[in-house]
Amino acid sequence: MNILVLNGVNLNMTGRRERGVYGVQTLREINERIAAYAAERGVEVKFFQNNNEGELCTAIQSAQGKYDGIILNAGAFTHYSYAIRDAIASVSVPVVEVHMSNVHAREEFRRNSVLTPVCSGEILGFGANSYILALESFLL
Amino acid sequence: MNILVLNGVNLNMTGRRERGVYGVQTLREINERIAAYAAERGVEVKFFQNNNEGELCTAIQSAQGKYDGIILNAGAFTHYSYAIRDAIASVSVPVVEVHMSNVHAREEFRRNSVLTPVCSGEILGFGANSYILALESFLL
Amino acid sequence: MNILVLNGVNLNMTGRRERGVYGVQTLREINERIAAYAAERGVEVKFFQNNNEGELCTAIQSAQGKYDGIILNAGAFTHYSYAIRDAIASVSVPVVEVHMSNVHAREEFRRNSVLTPVCSGEILGFGANSYILALESFLL
Amino acid sequence: MNILVLNGVNLNMTGRRERGVYGVQTLREINERIAAYAAERGVEVKFFQNNNEGELCTAIQSAQGKYDGIILNAGAFTHYSYAIRDAIASVSVPVVEVHMSNVHAREEFRRNSVLTPVCSGEILGFGANSYILALESFLL
Amino acid sequence: MNILVLNGVNLNMTGRRERGVYGVQTLREINERIAAYAAERGVEVKFFQNNNEGELCTAIQSAQGKYDGIILNAGAFTHYSYAIRDAIASVSVPVVEVHMSNVHAREEFRRNSVLTPVCSGEILGFGANSYILALESFLL
Amino acid sequence: MNILVLNGVNLNMTGRRERGVYGVQTLREINERIAAYAAERGVEVKFFQNNNEGELCTAIQSAQGKYDGIILNAGAFTHYSYAIRDAIASVSVPVVEVHMSNVHAREEFRRNSVLTPVCSGEILGFGANSYILALESFLL
Amino acid sequence: MNILVLNGVNLNMTGRRERGVYGVQTLREINERIAAYAAERGVEVKFFQNNNEGELCTAIQSAQGKYDGIILNAGAFTHYSYAIRDAIASVSVPVVEVHMSNVHAREEFRRNSVLTPVCSGEILGFGANSYILALESFLL
Amino acid sequence: MNILVLNGVNLNMTGRRERGVYGVQTLREINERIAAYAAERGVEVKFFQNNNEGELCTAIQSAQGKYDGIILNAGAFTHYSYAIRDAIASVSVPVVEVHMSNVHAREEFRRNSVLTPVCSGEILGFGANSYILALESFLL
Amino acid sequence: MNILVLNGVNLNMTGRRERGVYGVQTLREINERIAAYAAERGVEVKFFQNNNEGELCTAIQSAQGKYDGIILNAGAFTHYSYAIRDAIASVSVPVVEVHMSNVHAREEFRRNSVLTPVCSGEILGFGANSYILALESFLL
Amino acid sequence: MNILVLNGVNLNMTGRRERGVYGVQTLREINERIAAYAAERGVEVKFFQNNNEGELCTAIQSAQGKYDGIILNAGAFTHYSYAIRDAIASVSVPVVEVHMSNVHAREEFRRNSVLTPVCSGEILGFGANSYILALESFLL
Amino acid sequence: MNILVLNGVNLNMTGRRERGVYGVQTLREINERIAAYAAERGVEVKFFQNNNEGELCTAIQSAQGKYDGIILNAGAFTHYSYAIRDAIASVSVPVVEVHMSNVHAREEFRRNSVLTPVCSGEILGFGANSYILALESFLL
Amino acid sequence: MNILVLNGVNLNMTGRRERGVYGVQTLREINERIAAYAAERGVEVKFFQNNNEGELCTAIQSAQGKYDGIILNAGAFTHYSYAIRDAIASVSVPVVEVHMSNVHAREEFRRNSVLTPVCSGEILGFGANSYILALESFLL
Repeated sequence: MNILVLNGVNLNMTGRRERGVYGVQTLREINERIAAYAAERGVEVKFFQNNNEGELCTAIQSAQGKYDGIILNAGAFTHYSYAIRDAIASVSVPVVEVHMSNVHAREEFRRNSVLTPVCSGEILGFGANSYILALESFLL
Repeated sequence: MNILVLNGVNLNMTGRRERGVYGVQTLREINERIAAYAAERGVEVKFFQNNNEGELCTAIQSAQGKYDGIILNAGAFTHYSYAIRDAIASVSVPVVEVHMSNVHAREEFRRNSVLTPVCSGEILGFGANSYILALESFLL
Repeated sequence: MNILVLNGVNLNMTGRRERGVYGVQTLREINERIAAYAAERGVEVKFFQNNNEGELCTAIQSAQGKYDGIILNAGAFTHYSYAIRDAIASVSVPVVEVHMSNVHAREEFRRNSVLTPVCSGEILGFGANSYILALESFLL
Repeated sequence: MNILVLNGVNLNMTGRRERGVYGVQTLREINERIAAYAAERGVEVKFFQNNNEGELCTAIQSAQGKYDGIILNAGAFTHYSYAIRDAIASVSVPVVEVHMSNVHAREEFRRNSVLTPVCSGEILGFGANSYILALESFLL
Repeated sequence: MNILVLNGVNLNMTGRRERGVYGVQTLREINERIAAYAAERGVEVKFFQNNNEGELCTAIQSAQGKYDGIILNAGAFTHYSYAIRDAIASVSVPVVEVHMSNVHAREEFRRNSVLTPVCSGEILGFGANSYILALESFLL
Repeated sequence: MNILVLNGVNLNMTGRRERGVYGVQTLREINERIAAYAAERGVEVKFFQNNNEGELCTAIQSAQGKYDGIILNAGAFTHYSYAIRDAIASVSVPVVEVHMSNVHAREEFRRNSVLTPVCSGEILGFGANSYILALESFLL
Repeated sequence: MNILVLNGVNLNMTGRRERGVYGVQTLREINERIAAYAAERGVEVKFFQNNNEGELCTAIQSAQGKYDGIILNAGAFTHYSYAIRDAIASVSVPVVEVHMSNVHAREEFRRNSVLTPVCSGEILGFGANSYILALESFLL
Repeated sequence: MNILVLNGVNLNMTGRRERGVYGVQTLREINERIAAYAAERGVEVKFFQNNNEGELCTAIQSAQGKYDGIILNAGAFTHYSYAIRDAIASVSVPVVEVHMSNVHAREEFRRNSVLTPVCSGEILGFGANSYILALESFLL
Repeated sequence: MNILVLNGVNLNMTGRRERGVYGVQTLREINERIAAYAAERGVEVKFFQNNNEGELCTAIQSAQGKYDGIILNAGAFTHYSYAIRDAIASVSVPVVEVHMSNVHAREEFRRNSVLTPVCSGEILGFGANSYILALESFLL
Repeated sequence: MNILVLNGVNLNMTGRRERGVYGVQTLREINERIAAYAAERGVEVKFFQNNNEGELCTAIQSAQGKYDGIILNAGAFTHYSYAIRDAIASVSVPVVEVHMSNVHAREEFRRNSVLTPVCSGEILGFGANSYILALESFLL
Repeated sequence: MNILVLNGVNLNMTGRRERGVYGVQTLREINERIAAYAAERGVEVKFFQNNNEGELCTAIQSAQGKYDGIILNAGAFTHYSYAIRDAIASVSVPVVEVHMSNVHAREEFRRNSVLTPVCSGEILGFGANSYILALESFLL
Repeated sequence: MNILVLNGVNLNMTGRRERGVYGVQTLREINERIAAYAAERGVEVKFFQNNNEGELCTAIQSAQGKYDGIILNAGAFTHYSYAIRDAIASVSVPVVEVHMSNVHAREEFRRNSVLTPVCSGEILGFGANSYILALESFLL
């Protein structure tokens, strides 16, 4: 099984920004933890982070035929990127939306995700464990 | 570790109603699967289902001091029960909100959960596996 | 033919409350009139009234396989009980929504019924005759 | 007893358009069925259909003193014709609003009727039987 | 000076409908009073009433070059007829909008006129005198 | 007959500000014209202008028993002063709301008057003649 | 004088939950204080708390003829229970709505009470003293 | 190939009204141009214009079986005529919606077309060429 | 203890305006009753009424250090005066908002108070007793 | 004549994604067809597709002085990219907005285009022919 | 160069109220700092503060011909005073709107200024320096 | 002191597009003016412009530790880029938002900035001087 872990805008700042919200682990540390967990479970994972909406669309388009699933944390794009939504709808690879924080307990604008209606599932509020649970969801 | 699996209104009809949405497994079968998984992971689980908003509030209130976590699928109450929301806020037990279907891909009214802001996390769209992942979230 | 006449919250006060709106007949008197009409038409009717949203859901769930139709006046639950809506959707028994008053000529909040989209039909504004017409609708 | 059965815009297409929604009976066939039922019940019925909002207003105005009741299916005018609403309010003849389909289970715009607040009652969702029940409502 | 007094839908019922709102004078009596006042002031007036939105548009279109002003009470069309609005905008004859009742003290939907933005002025709440004042407005 | 002509905030700038909208006549010139017209019609008029919402309320309160009518151009207070609205409702003197410009053809916020529902009538769009017509309305 | 003190959902958690908001006194302690105050003032008070919307409706219905007044803190039901609203409207016993916290200084959803329009008065923000003041309101 | 060019309310004023918006060509001149173009392309076209919503509905209904396509500029009816919408839905003839002006660059209310969802396509902003392009669309 | 009783716009008309809503007691009589009650309870009260928003702000600002509490009935300013809201927030004197009528049972606009979020409590619906209860609230 | 055919995000997936909506032709095939048609009509066309909002803005900016027109299908950016809107407004090259599908017959969010108000025209619903018609619009 | 520094309601409390938001400097100290800065830059400044909306309007009206610019901090009036907005529009003196705090980072209602559309510029969030920068803006 | 002047989408067109709104100076000329002013004030400034949302996020992220402040004109991204908002929130460098035009006097959509709540201040409406004032704000 091949899984793509796709992180969107500003997630490269994880562990460096707003630690009260996102924790102190950097994205690299989180990815290492995911990789270790995946290895244990016999899953191959690739990681890609980009601040660019268009690049994320291209990454999702390119996943077709290469990955069995995508774990997607689109960051702020979650709330308005119909472009990413259409990219997800254009492939048959199942996408699991994840958020580290409980986006529903923060600013009002974070309560709406334009992506969820075209994702297969959503996991939010478990910190870095949101990624692990998403990974697990492909194995159950 | 003690976990309460709390199912709300109409979830007793699972497997019997709208199978296209909820699958063919009955709630009993789902609970058995959760129990088996929990046993394997060394977790004790209790199950409670009720069609009554007030009973669900009482169940959440009573969890204080007895459980380490609650897995809650409130059914349709999810969308308007500020009573259940306040019950969750009144206890220090962490509550993980789950939904079997992707509620964001259905009717508009199902897109709003009044509960999520006071839950610790949310998992949705994985069928009966939503419960399993919620259970797993307490173990990570 | 077996029909369940299901009355929701505060309908036990009919004939005693707001007589300008609901008339002077009590619920018992209305039920007797329905029963007489049904007998004449060779229909068996059962009556159930409850102030409790959860009990109404359970009553609807239990109608499956026992009744050929439900005549439902959910009272104020009409306007916000997605729980009752889901209960209706969970059974294959056709449900006819009735209101004694013309709910569209009263307060704004009474203009929205969350139940109608999953009912087979709706009859409103004919006083106690709304029930009789609903009964008749199953016979035509 | 004299009853006017008034059909609005596009109802002359019944049985020819969107049969999944409106059934296969033509308006003529429906009217014949209503006429037969009325005859049996000793009621005199007249039929009028028009695609023109103004003509429908005139028909309602003219009903004063000539009819004991109007059965009105205004078609799409239901949702925005304050002109028809005012016509209804300008006469003392009771008007029963009918719809063949369950308008609340279709497009959002069909959920609002500007006419119901000035009608005496509303019956919807029973196909051609909606007219029969409306007729019956004048006899109970 | 030539003035067209244009009355829309249901205004032919004036004096017969909702007398608490519109008074007991019939449209004919009101027109006679306007005609008398106009004669005294040396103004020629023509009267036209129609229940049909299209006919009203045509009447407004035809006023170009024939009348120095239009006094328009569009009745319920006031609140939604963008067709009449465009007809007004298509001619250079000034149009004064009138209402007999204070439309702002009635139902919410009567508070919005889609016509006023393209009229030269508006007079409302003076009963039949609204027409007289409108006539006077062309003379000042 | 005694009439109070009451002008609100910024109307002292008339003829000096936004002449494209309000014309070149100053308030003094407009008042003189009203006074001349009133004299001719045998009406006594008093004029009061104030930029202060509270003073306008006091002026309306004080009109009780002293004036037979008030002609009120509240200026921008029209759109939000529930204080002036309540002042109008607290006296039995009829109040005619006037505007020189067609407020419905300007910014969106000017389309809502919180005063009209408690006024007896409204006249707008006739420039300084709006006052004259309002005066005339008390004489018809 | 007989007064019913009616507490709704989650108020049994008072003093145990969110003490920053509701204080440290338990409901039992608050009730004892009310009872003491009532005794001093010669009033008989009964206490009833329930998490169940239907039970609260029944309690209000049953108050007819038994109590001179109801002091009602409906908890979260305040914001959406049209069922309780209708129960209040169905009895002639005056109901005073109370809240311990200033609900207008908290989450947005708490700013709307569907109950107040049918209550005789409302008192909020005085902690347990809100009940005492409500009691006093029946004695003034 | 037979095409019906259907123009709605006020389009008979084209070339005479608001020339800044609609150009100086009259409807007759536009139709002649369309006819010439159609002749060249071997298409038969018929023209019908009416100010009456009901007549437009009837024209659309009658197109069934007689025309291969309809080019429809409904004028102001575009924005609120659910009657015309239903007429379009009642026939299987494809309808192309056209507007001469760019309706999205004008008043807010012109941005919503209730017709487009049931049309096969829409062309707007090309002046009289909008009709030519619509004609062409049936030939490609 | 020193308490300032602050009445806003139009409250000087109490007992003279809309007696069905506000009762027949004048503000002077109400104040005398409050003074008598206060004297009995050993509280010093001062009274201030003004129709002027700015004066009310100044009065609130000046209360700092002079009064132990303010009882405020801001009249219509309640619904839009962010100026008064900020004045309340600028002092540490607790302010209790009062209304004589049940503002939630009247016009829609009266349901929103911009002041409550910065007041310590609110009492409404008890006629002149609302002031007495507010006074009492400072003594409990 | 030089025309730029500009395709936005995910349009490179055309023919591969959601074929029910977009048809089976790939973008390359569509472009070839446009090129052939253009050649026949003596027009020079260039093609540019990009998933990146910023690149599309740059492409539009660069069209100034180089192209006589732009045919723009912005994909999902249509619904929220004020950046592209401003890019269009910053050049004097006319832009025709096209969509292959009837965006008004799909999800609600697709009904709003932030681009149309600054485009010269819009063509939608004709599949790949939307591009051909847009090309034709520059030639008429 | 003559500049009027105009402060609205509650700004006389600066340095005494909500110091976390507005800092500890009093308005007098701020004005002294502005005066010193102005002197250095060869600008004459006058200061005026008032809690009264009407007085602020009069002050703005009177600035015509006397000042080269106005620096306006209207306090809470910013959010609803269309009266002040019209006063600004009635003079040709440029007005720069200032706020000491970042009003967009506070309560929702503070995000809307009804004044900005008629001001020449706006500066906010720099504490007392907002005034200095506004002064500087007249000198650049 | 090091300041980054960051310009977003389409600002490279300044001086070339919509000169009525943005003036005739090109971005290069504006930057030269800022550089000259900065040099005089002993501040080091760097300039960066990009049409790409993601690049702007990266630029902001990279400013951490390198700049003492950012002057940001995000162009159209101002109104919807939660990505840029989060980038600002992820660094401790203060950001001053600037606009050359008075965005509140233009289209409605330009009245909302999603960035301001996380910026330290905002300056708008002073043309190129908005940048100079922002620079000055770091020096006061």
